[in-house]
Amino acid sequence: MIVTALTEMFGLKHPIVLGPMGGVAGGLLAAAVSNGGGLGMVGGGYGEKAWLETELALVKANTDRPWGAGLITWSIGEGVLELVLAAKPHAIVLSFGDPTPYASAIKAAGCKLICQVQDVAGAVQARKAGADLIVAQGTEGGGHGGSRATLPLVPAVIDAVGSVPVVAAGGIADGRGLAAAIMLGAQGVLMGTRFYATPEALGHDQAKQRIVNACGDQTQRTRVFDIVRGYDWPNGYTGRALHNPFMRRWDGKEKELAKEIPVERPAFWEAAGKGDYETAMVWAGEVSDLIHTVEGAGALVGRISAQAEAQLRIADKVLRP
Amino acid sequence: MIVTALTEMFGLKHPIVLGPMGGVAGGLLAAAVSNGGGLGMVGGGYGEKAWLETELALVKANTDRPWGAGLITWSIGEGVLELVLAAKPHAIVLSFGDPTPYASAIKAAGCKLICQVQDVAGAVQARKAGADLIVAQGTEGGGHGGSRATLPLVPAVIDAVGSVPVVAAGGIADGRGLAAAIMLGAQGVLMGTRFYATPEALGHDQAKQRIVNACGDQTQRTRVFDIVRGYDWPNGYTGRALHNPFMRRWDGKEKELAKEIPVERPAFWEAAGKGDYETAMVWAGEVSDLIHTVEGAGALVGRISAQAEAQLRIADKVLRP
Repeated sequence: MIVTALTEMFGLKHPIVLGPMGGVAGGLLAAAVSNGGGLGMVGGGYGEKAWLETELALVKANTDRPWGAGLITWSIGEGVLELVLAAKPHAIVLSFGDPTPYASAIKAAGCKLICQVQDVAGAVQARKAGADLIVAQGTEGGGHGGSRATLPLVPAVIDAVGSVPVVAAGGIADGRGLAAAIMLGAQGVLMGTRFYATPEALGHDQAKQRIVNACGDQTQRTRVFDIVRGYDWPNGYTGRALHNPFMRRWDGKEKELAKEIPVERPAFWEAAGKGDYETAMVWAGEVSDLIHTVEGAGALVGRISAQAEAQLRIADKVLRP
Repeated sequence: MIVTALTEMFGLKHPIVLGPMGGVAGGLLAAAVSNGGGLGMVGGGYGEKAWLETELALVKANTDRPWGAGLITWSIGEGVLELVLAAKPHAIVLSFGDPTPYASAIKAAGCKLICQVQDVAGAVQARKAGADLIVAQGTEGGGHGGSRATLPLVPAVIDAVGSVPVVAAGGIADGRGLAAAIMLGAQGVLMGTRFYATPEALGHDQAKQRIVNACGDQTQRTRVFDIVRGYDWPNGYTGRALHNPFMRRWDGKEKELAKEIPVERPAFWEAAGKGDYETAMVWAGEVSDLIHTVEGAGALVGRISAQAEAQLRIADKVLRP
């Protein structure tokens, strides 16, 4: 058993947090991770209320363990935070923007404030906003993120935020990554892509199979999927997805794509709806190399934690008096 | 003491390799790292013979411990490998290109072949070429590199190359990074930027001071310094440097820079010669956050290894029966 500030904060069996992947981390995946001993997260994405109501009801119905929800800070619309807090999550993850305006409402609800940051400046801002936990997210992670890499970012964030516990995200999909994160001084890990390839994740089976089949050399950060969908992400954030023909066609030609929106947007949404991933994106991190099967999320939590325990024990083997 | 396949291969006290930084890792720095218990490296860069003769003589005169030299594979000119092998290094690091044409000469000289790779495909190529050791180098490292990040790349390379020992590079500057690398399954680390900020490194004091003062959010991968200098790097490789006005002026305007070479190139070399780093580059990785002083390279090797030992011992604290 691995005991850290993260496991103690929420009474978890394993220091593993589900990445709140928008549209992928629904209530059933969140409940499965929580039931498996980690901290499940509903991925609130851009804050679509009907989707949130459905998924928040599902997580509540399927676990009595602690769970949370994640929101994209810059996109939080009126009433969305209130809707999420009304479901009584144990934690809210805010990522991609200044958490300060939302901190007091979250803490007043008795909910832990987790801030996911992409650089040291963001970590300092999160500490000042009163974050209970900071997730340092590296650029190798899937979906939206910044440009700093996890291995040097985590210790730099730890050095910058004093006593606030830090969790590592980006580039972690197995027990080796969890053990490495602990050596960096992190209190656990947040994993997205690894949990995408589970039966409980929302999304088409073809998307999950593409993650299993891909290698990590086949992902890239891009803006094309945000442009075609009409999401106006602030500077500094891009999304990491598996290479596909749509990305290859438009990457580097973002201005041309913006002009073709009347044709490209409806075609994109049609492709996304039917699971055509030659056009639609599969958000995925560089850890695709380390993902070989679609497997149940609950068992995965225990297996990864056990692998990390075994890895931590090799410390004794390499150390000599 | 940390004992791994790396320390056993060369009889080292510490599992730490000096990054063969061109023009920075001269004979005195290489000797200091070797004398400190690590594996020093002369940075052969683009293979300038007069420079190599001077620095190879210096390393031989200043240490009787094992040491090596690094070359940029795609740039190896006639007679350069022979010149280096004649100095009887214990290891040669080949990076950035196919090592196969050079492998047999290196091994025939009784020298270990170390291949530094930036992706899984490169690791498989290195294994087939007969590499004795593979360095998996992440994009967060300073100077030239690829696009994959260290944390997910190292375990993916380990899984791909079977019994060949792997060393982690990129994003490591202290004992936390070394301990994390060992948890990933690596046999040690190769560090560049951390050793740039030492008195023994070649280069202007102002460059070293800029690394000490910078934070990791202030580095970027770019081609502008290669274009202005006229080095025709193959696709896929860029150099990570500290932000400066020259980079800000030309990044994204590489084609315009190429047209201004008659003016910009002599101005650049003049700036580089006098240590004007508003124009010349300081190659540096994202670990600049973790570097607070210019300090002696030999003591640094021991201090980082001792910090890693202490960090590895926290495994016992987080594990509960």
